[in-house]
Amino acid sequence: MAAQERTPGSRLGRRNDPDRRDRIIDACLEVISQSGVAGTSHRKVAAQAAVPLGAMTYYFAGMGDLLHEAFTRFATTISDRFERRMAAAVDADAARQAVVAIILEDVFGDDRELVLAHELYTLAAREPAFRSITTAWMERSRAALERHFDPETARMLDALIEGLTIHRALDSHARDGREVEIAVARITTG
Amino acid sequence: MAAQERTPGSRLGRRNDPDRRDRIIDACLEVISQSGVAGTSHRKVAAQAAVPLGAMTYYFAGMGDLLHEAFTRFATTISDRFERRMAAAVDADAARQAVVAIILEDVFGDDRELVLAHELYTLAAREPAFRSITTAWMERSRAALERHFDPETARMLDALIEGLTIHRALDSHARDGREVEIAVARITTG
Repeated sequence: MAAQERTPGSRLGRRNDPDRRDRIIDACLEVISQSGVAGTSHRKVAAQAAVPLGAMTYYFAGMGDLLHEAFTRFATTISDRFERRMAAAVDADAARQAVVAIILEDVFGDDRELVLAHELYTLAAREPAFRSITTAWMERSRAALERHFDPETARMLDALIEGLTIHRALDSHARDGREVEIAVARITTG
Repeated sequence: MAAQERTPGSRLGRRNDPDRRDRIIDACLEVISQSGVAGTSHRKVAAQAAVPLGAMTYYFAGMGDLLHEAFTRFATTISDRFERRMAAAVDADAARQAVVAIILEDVFGDDRELVLAHELYTLAAREPAFRSITTAWMERSRAALERHFDPETARMLDALIEGLTIHRALDSHARDGREVEIAVARITTG
Protein backbone atom coordinates (compact mmCIF):
# COMPACT_ATOMS: atom_id res chain seq x y z
CA MET A 1 0.00 0.00 0.00
CA ALA A 2 2.48 2.59 1.17
CA ALA A 3 5.24 0.92 -0.87
CA GLN A 4 5.57 3.76 -3.35
CA GLU A 5 5.51 6.48 -0.73
CA ARG A 6 8.34 4.93 1.18
CA THR A 7 10.62 3.73 -1.58
CA PRO A 8 14.00 4.96 -0.41
CA GLY A 9 16.37 7.04 -2.47
CA SER A 10 19.29 5.36 -4.15
CA ARG A 11 21.98 4.33 -1.73
CA LEU A 12 24.73 1.89 -2.39
CA GLY A 13 23.55 -1.69 -1.94
CA ARG A 14 19.87 -0.90 -2.30
CA ARG A 15 20.62 0.17 -5.87
CA ASN A 16 21.19 -3.48 -6.69
CA ASP A 17 18.32 -4.72 -4.59
CA PRO A 18 15.31 -2.57 -5.46
CA ASP A 19 12.72 -5.04 -4.15
CA ARG A 20 14.29 -5.31 -0.74
CA ARG A 21 11.40 -3.70 1.12
CA ASP A 22 9.03 -5.98 -0.68
CA ARG A 23 11.04 -9.03 0.23
CA ILE A 24 11.08 -8.03 3.89
CA ILE A 25 7.27 -7.95 3.90
CA ASP A 26 7.09 -11.46 2.41
CA ALA A 27 9.71 -12.67 4.86
CA CYS A 28 7.69 -11.23 7.73
CA LEU A 29 4.63 -13.28 6.69
CA GLU A 30 6.81 -16.36 6.49
CA VAL A 31 8.17 -15.77 10.01
CA ILE A 32 4.67 -15.10 11.39
CA SER A 33 3.41 -18.35 9.89
CA GLN A 34 6.25 -20.23 11.57
CA SER A 35 6.61 -18.42 14.90
CA GLY A 36 3.43 -16.43 15.36
CA VAL A 37 3.19 -12.66 15.77
CA ALA A 38 4.52 -12.97 19.31
CA GLY A 39 7.62 -14.81 18.11
CA THR A 40 8.35 -12.42 15.24
CA SER A 41 11.39 -10.17 15.65
CA HIS A 42 13.35 -7.82 13.42
CA ARG A 43 16.24 -10.23 13.68
CA LYS A 44 14.27 -13.25 12.46
CA VAL A 45 12.66 -11.34 9.60
CA ALA A 46 15.99 -9.88 8.47
CA ALA A 47 17.53 -13.37 8.44
CA GLN A 48 14.56 -14.77 6.49
CA ALA A 49 14.77 -11.92 3.95
CA ALA A 50 18.57 -12.15 3.80
CA VAL A 51 19.00 -8.44 4.47
CA PRO A 52 21.15 -6.75 7.10
CA LEU A 53 19.38 -6.02 10.38
CA GLY A 54 19.77 -2.28 9.75
CA ALA A 55 17.50 -2.51 6.72
CA MET A 56 14.56 -3.24 9.00
CA THR A 57 14.54 0.14 10.70
CA TYR A 58 15.37 1.86 7.43
CA TYR A 59 12.19 0.62 5.76
CA PHE A 60 9.82 0.30 8.70
CA ALA A 61 9.00 2.60 11.57
CA GLY A 62 8.80 -0.36 13.92
CA MET A 63 7.39 -3.83 14.34
CA GLY A 64 3.81 -2.50 14.36
CA ASP A 65 4.38 -0.84 11.00
CA LEU A 66 5.93 -3.98 9.52
CA LEU A 67 3.12 -6.21 10.84
CA HIS A 68 0.56 -3.80 9.42
CA GLU A 69 2.18 -3.92 5.98
CA ALA A 70 2.56 -7.69 6.09
CA PHE A 71 -1.03 -8.43 7.07
CA THR A 72 -2.30 -5.86 4.57
CA ARG A 73 -0.46 -7.75 1.85
CA PHE A 74 -1.83 -11.07 3.12
CA ALA A 75 -5.43 -9.80 3.19
CA THR A 76 -5.05 -8.20 -0.23
CA THR A 77 -3.71 -11.41 -1.75
CA ILE A 78 -6.67 -13.43 -0.49
CA SER A 79 -9.26 -10.85 -1.43
CA ASP A 80 -7.75 -10.47 -4.94
CA ARG A 81 -8.33 -14.18 -5.45
CA PHE A 82 -11.85 -13.81 -4.08
CA GLU A 83 -12.55 -10.90 -6.40
CA ARG A 84 -11.33 -12.78 -9.46
CA ARG A 85 -13.65 -15.67 -8.65
CA MET A 86 -16.62 -13.33 -8.31
CA ALA A 87 -15.75 -11.36 -11.43
CA ALA A 88 -15.63 -14.58 -13.45
CA ALA A 89 -19.14 -15.62 -12.41
CA VAL A 90 -21.65 -14.76 -15.13
CA ASP A 91 -24.77 -14.75 -12.94
CA ALA A 92 -26.01 -15.30 -9.37
CA ASP A 93 -26.06 -19.08 -9.77
CA ALA A 94 -22.50 -19.16 -11.01
CA ALA A 95 -21.60 -16.84 -8.12
CA ARG A 96 -23.14 -19.32 -5.64
CA GLN A 97 -21.07 -22.12 -7.15
CA ALA A 98 -17.99 -19.93 -6.96
CA VAL A 99 -18.65 -19.21 -3.28
CA VAL A 100 -18.95 -22.95 -2.59
CA ALA A 101 -15.65 -23.51 -4.39
CA ILE A 102 -14.06 -20.70 -2.37
CA ILE A 103 -15.13 -22.33 0.90
CA LEU A 104 -14.17 -25.85 -0.12
CA GLU A 105 -10.94 -25.04 -1.95
CA ASP A 106 -9.62 -21.50 -1.68
CA VAL A 107 -10.08 -20.09 1.79
CA PHE A 108 -7.71 -20.75 3.37
CA GLY A 109 -5.90 -22.57 0.60
CA ASP A 110 -3.43 -24.17 2.95
CA ASP A 111 -2.48 -24.39 6.61
CA ARG A 112 -0.16 -21.43 6.23
CA GLU A 113 -3.03 -19.17 5.20
CA LEU A 114 -5.28 -20.54 7.94
CA VAL A 115 -2.61 -19.80 10.53
CA LEU A 116 -1.93 -16.31 9.15
CA ALA A 117 -5.64 -15.44 9.15
CA HIS A 118 -6.02 -16.48 12.77
CA GLU A 119 -2.85 -14.60 13.72
CA LEU A 120 -4.36 -11.50 12.14
CA TYR A 121 -7.72 -11.98 13.86
CA THR A 122 -6.02 -12.47 17.22
CA LEU A 123 -4.00 -9.31 16.70
CA ALA A 124 -7.10 -7.36 15.63
CA ALA A 125 -9.05 -8.70 18.62
CA ARG A 126 -6.30 -7.36 20.89
CA GLU A 127 -5.40 -4.15 19.08
CA PRO A 128 -8.12 -2.10 17.41
CA ALA A 129 -5.48 -0.45 15.17
CA PHE A 130 -5.32 -3.67 13.18
CA ARG A 131 -9.08 -3.68 12.58
CA SER A 132 -8.50 -1.29 9.70
CA ILE A 133 -7.07 -4.33 7.87
CA THR A 134 -9.93 -6.69 8.72
CA THR A 135 -12.48 -3.95 8.00
CA ALA A 136 -10.97 -3.22 4.58
CA TRP A 137 -10.80 -6.95 3.83
CA MET A 138 -14.49 -7.40 4.64
CA GLU A 139 -15.35 -4.35 2.55
CA ARG A 140 -13.55 -5.79 -0.48
CA SER A 141 -15.20 -9.19 -0.08
CA ARG A 142 -18.61 -7.60 0.16
CA ALA A 143 -18.00 -5.37 -2.85
CA ALA A 144 -17.08 -8.49 -4.83
CA LEU A 145 -20.23 -10.28 -3.65
CA GLU A 146 -22.35 -7.22 -4.49
CA ARG A 147 -21.67 -7.89 -8.14
CA HIS A 148 -24.30 -10.60 -7.74
CA PHE A 149 -26.20 -10.02 -4.47
CA ASP A 150 -27.79 -7.11 -2.61
CA PRO A 151 -25.61 -5.47 0.09
CA GLU A 152 -27.43 -7.13 3.00
CA THR A 153 -27.15 -10.59 1.48
CA ALA A 154 -23.50 -9.89 0.64
CA ARG A 155 -22.74 -9.15 4.31
CA MET A 156 -24.52 -12.28 5.56
CA LEU A 157 -22.91 -14.44 2.90
CA ASP A 158 -19.48 -13.07 3.76
CA ALA A 159 -20.03 -13.98 7.44
CA LEU A 160 -21.27 -17.44 6.46
CA ILE A 161 -18.15 -18.03 4.36
CA GLU A 162 -16.04 -17.07 7.36
CA GLY A 163 -17.88 -19.36 9.75
CA LEU A 164 -18.02 -22.38 7.46
CA THR A 165 -14.35 -22.03 6.58
CA ILE A 166 -13.26 -21.83 10.20
CA HIS A 167 -15.50 -24.65 11.37
CA ARG A 168 -14.36 -26.94 8.60
CA ALA A 169 -10.72 -26.20 9.36
CA LEU A 170 -11.02 -26.65 13.13
CA ASP A 171 -13.16 -29.80 13.06
CA SER A 172 -11.26 -33.07 13.44
CA HIS A 173 -14.06 -34.87 11.60
CA ALA A 174 -14.38 -34.67 7.83
CA ARG A 175 -17.47 -32.76 6.78
CA ASP A 176 -19.79 -33.11 3.85
CA GLY A 177 -19.41 -30.51 1.08
CA ARG A 178 -23.15 -30.61 0.47
CA GLU A 179 -23.89 -28.64 3.65
CA VAL A 180 -21.91 -25.76 2.15
CA GLU A 181 -24.05 -25.76 -1.00
CA ILE A 182 -27.26 -25.80 1.00
CA ALA A 183 -26.13 -23.11 3.40
CA VAL A 184 -25.08 -20.81 0.55
CA ALA A 185 -28.40 -21.41 -1.22
CA ARG A 186 -30.37 -20.62 1.93
CA ILE A 187 -28.54 -17.43 2.88
CA THR A 188 -28.79 -16.04 -0.66
CA THR A 189 -32.52 -16.70 -0.97
CA GLY A 190 -34.20 -13.62 0.41
CA MET B 1 -12.17 -32.68 32.68
CA ALA B 2 -9.24 -34.65 34.03
CA ALA B 3 -9.41 -32.73 37.31
CA GLN B 4 -10.57 -35.69 39.36
CA GLU B 5 -8.10 -38.13 37.87
CA ARG B 6 -5.17 -35.92 38.70
CA THR B 7 -6.12 -34.61 42.12
CA PRO B 8 -2.92 -35.10 44.08
CA GLY B 9 -2.69 -36.90 47.40
CA SER B 10 -2.52 -34.91 50.59
CA ARG B 11 0.78 -33.17 51.10
CA LEU B 12 1.49 -30.36 53.49
CA GLY B 13 0.46 -27.00 52.02
CA ARG B 14 -1.90 -28.41 49.43
CA ARG B 15 -4.02 -29.71 52.34
CA ASN B 16 -4.97 -26.12 53.05
CA ASP B 17 -5.34 -25.20 49.42
CA PRO B 18 -7.44 -27.88 47.78
CA ASP B 19 -8.46 -25.79 44.78
CA ARG B 20 -4.92 -24.92 43.82
CA ARG B 21 -4.95 -26.85 40.54
CA ASP B 22 -8.21 -25.19 39.68
CA ARG B 23 -6.82 -21.76 40.39
CA ILE B 24 -3.79 -22.41 38.20
CA ILE B 25 -6.10 -23.15 35.27
CA ASP B 26 -7.99 -19.89 35.77
CA ALA B 27 -4.72 -18.02 36.15
CA CYS B 28 -3.47 -19.54 32.91
CA LEU B 29 -6.51 -18.16 31.03
CA GLU B 30 -5.87 -14.77 32.57
CA VAL B 31 -2.23 -14.80 31.47
CA ILE B 32 -3.17 -15.95 27.95
CA SER B 33 -5.69 -13.13 27.63
CA GLN B 34 -2.99 -10.62 28.63
CA SER B 35 0.12 -12.05 26.96
CA GLY B 36 -1.11 -14.53 24.37
CA VAL B 37 -0.26 -18.22 24.24
CA ALA B 38 3.24 -17.37 23.02
CA GLY B 39 3.86 -15.14 26.02
CA THR B 40 2.52 -17.59 28.59
CA SER B 41 5.10 -19.22 30.85
CA HIS B 42 5.01 -21.37 33.98
CA ARG B 43 6.52 -18.47 35.85
CA LYS B 44 3.83 -15.98 34.84
CA VAL B 45 0.99 -18.38 35.55
CA ALA B 46 2.40 -19.32 38.96
CA ALA B 47 2.69 -15.62 39.87
CA GLN B 48 -0.86 -14.95 38.71
CA ALA B 49 -2.20 -17.92 40.70
CA ALA B 50 -0.04 -17.05 43.71
CA VAL B 51 1.42 -20.55 43.92
CA PRO B 52 5.07 -21.61 44.07
CA LEU B 53 6.65 -22.35 40.70
CA GLY B 54 7.07 -26.00 41.71
CA ALA B 55 3.30 -26.44 41.84
CA MET B 56 3.13 -26.06 38.07
CA THR B 57 5.07 -29.20 37.26
CA TYR B 58 3.34 -31.04 40.11
CA TYR B 59 -0.12 -30.54 38.62
CA PHE B 60 0.64 -30.38 34.88
CA ALA B 61 2.79 -32.54 32.64
CA GLY B 62 3.93 -29.46 30.76
CA MET B 63 2.78 -26.27 29.13
CA GLY B 64 0.85 -28.19 26.46
CA ASP B 65 -1.10 -30.02 29.16
CA LEU B 66 -1.86 -26.79 31.03
CA LEU B 67 -2.96 -24.99 27.83
CA HIS B 68 -5.18 -27.93 26.95
CA GLU B 69 -6.87 -27.82 30.35
CA ALA B 70 -7.23 -24.04 30.27
CA PHE B 71 -8.79 -23.88 26.82
CA THR B 72 -11.04 -26.84 27.63
CA ARG B 73 -12.36 -24.88 30.60
CA PHE B 74 -12.81 -21.76 28.46
CA ALA B 75 -14.73 -23.63 25.73
CA THR B 76 -16.86 -25.43 28.31
CA THR B 77 -17.78 -22.18 30.04
CA ILE B 78 -18.96 -20.61 26.79
CA SER B 79 -20.82 -23.68 25.61
CA ASP B 80 -22.53 -24.09 29.01
CA ARG B 81 -23.94 -20.59 28.57
CA PHE B 82 -24.96 -21.45 25.03
CA GLU B 83 -26.67 -24.65 26.17
CA ARG B 84 -28.62 -22.82 28.89
CA ARG B 85 -29.92 -20.34 26.33
CA MET B 86 -31.06 -23.13 24.03
CA ALA B 87 -32.59 -25.18 26.84
CA ALA B 88 -34.65 -22.17 27.93
CA ALA B 89 -36.18 -21.69 24.46
CA VAL B 90 -39.65 -23.23 24.30
CA ASP B 91 -39.86 -23.59 20.51
CA ALA B 92 -37.94 -22.97 17.27
CA ASP B 93 -38.98 -19.31 17.15
CA ALA B 94 -37.77 -18.71 20.68
CA ALA B 95 -34.58 -20.57 19.75
CA ARG B 96 -34.05 -18.21 16.80
CA GLN B 97 -34.44 -15.23 19.10
CA ALA B 98 -32.03 -16.81 21.56
CA VAL B 99 -29.46 -17.31 18.78
CA VAL B 100 -29.78 -13.64 17.82
CA ALA B 101 -29.25 -12.66 21.46
CA ILE B 102 -26.22 -14.95 21.66
CA ILE B 103 -24.64 -13.25 18.62
CA LEU B 104 -25.48 -9.72 19.72
CA GLU B 105 -24.79 -10.10 23.43
CA ASP B 106 -23.12 -13.32 24.58
CA VAL B 107 -20.48 -14.47 22.16
CA PHE B 108 -17.92 -13.29 22.93
CA GLY B 109 -19.27 -11.43 25.93
CA ASP B 110 -16.24 -9.21 26.22
CA ASP B 111 -12.89 -8.52 24.62
CA ARG B 112 -11.23 -11.04 26.91
CA GLU B 113 -13.38 -13.87 25.53
CA LEU B 114 -12.88 -12.67 21.97
CA VAL B 115 -9.12 -12.71 22.45
CA LEU B 116 -9.15 -16.14 24.14
CA ALA B 117 -11.26 -17.63 21.36
CA HIS B 118 -8.87 -16.36 18.70
CA GLU B 119 -5.88 -17.57 20.70
CA LEU B 120 -7.46 -21.02 20.80
CA TYR B 121 -8.27 -20.99 17.08
CA THR B 122 -4.73 -19.93 16.23
CA LEU B 123 -3.33 -22.72 18.38
CA ALA B 124 -5.70 -25.27 16.83
CA ALA B 125 -4.81 -24.04 13.33
CA ARG B 126 -1.14 -24.67 14.15
CA GLU B 127 -1.42 -27.81 16.24
CA PRO B 128 -4.01 -30.45 15.37
CA ALA B 129 -3.83 -31.79 18.96
CA PHE B 130 -5.86 -28.77 20.06
CA ARG B 131 -8.60 -29.48 17.53
CA SER B 132 -10.06 -31.96 20.00
CA ILE B 133 -11.14 -28.89 21.99
CA THR B 134 -12.64 -27.00 19.05
CA THR B 135 -14.26 -30.21 17.77
CA ALA B 136 -15.87 -30.94 21.15
CA TRP B 137 -16.99 -27.32 21.44
CA MET B 138 -18.71 -27.47 18.03
CA GLU B 139 -20.31 -30.79 18.94
CA ARG B 140 -21.79 -29.32 22.12
CA SER B 141 -23.10 -26.24 20.30
CA ARG B 142 -24.71 -28.38 17.65
CA ALA B 143 -26.27 -30.72 20.20
CA ALA B 144 -27.80 -27.68 21.90
CA LEU B 145 -29.12 -26.38 18.57
CA GLU B 146 -30.51 -29.81 17.72
CA ARG B 147 -33.04 -29.36 20.48
CA HIS B 148 -34.80 -27.12 17.95
CA PHE B 149 -33.34 -27.76 14.50
CA ASP B 150 -32.36 -30.74 12.35
CA PRO B 151 -28.65 -31.72 12.46
CA GLU B 152 -27.81 -30.18 9.09
CA THR B 153 -29.43 -26.86 9.98
CA ALA B 154 -27.72 -26.97 13.37
CA ARG B 155 -24.31 -27.26 11.70
CA MET B 156 -24.98 -24.40 9.30
CA LEU B 157 -26.43 -22.21 12.02
CA ASP B 158 -23.43 -22.87 14.24
CA ALA B 159 -21.09 -21.76 11.43
CA LEU B 160 -23.22 -18.67 10.80
CA ILE B 161 -23.05 -17.73 14.48
CA GLU B 162 -19.26 -18.03 14.30
CA GLY B 163 -18.95 -15.91 11.18
CA LEU B 164 -21.34 -13.17 12.26
CA THR B 165 -19.73 -12.94 15.68
CA ILE B 166 -16.23 -12.63 14.26
CA HIS B 167 -17.18 -10.15 11.56
CA ARG B 168 -19.06 -7.94 13.99
CA ALA B 169 -16.11 -7.97 16.38
CA LEU B 170 -13.46 -7.27 13.74
CA ASP B 171 -15.38 -4.56 11.86
CA SER B 172 -14.50 -0.97 12.80
CA HIS B 173 -17.94 0.12 11.64
CA ALA B 174 -21.02 -0.44 13.79
CA ARG B 175 -23.39 -2.95 12.22
CA ASP B 176 -27.13 -3.28 12.24
CA GLY B 177 -28.55 -6.00 14.49
CA ARG B 178 -31.33 -6.61 11.98
CA GLU B 179 -28.97 -8.39 9.57
CA VAL B 180 -28.43 -10.99 12.30
CA GLU B 181 -32.15 -11.66 12.62
CA ILE B 182 -32.59 -12.00 8.88
CA ALA B 183 -29.54 -14.24 8.48
CA VAL B 184 -30.70 -16.56 11.28
CA ALA B 185 -34.19 -16.71 9.77
CA ARG B 186 -32.83 -17.56 6.32
CA ILE B 187 -30.42 -20.28 7.42
CA THR B 188 -33.06 -22.00 9.58
CA THR B 189 -35.67 -22.04 6.82
CA GLY B 190 -35.10 -25.25 4.92
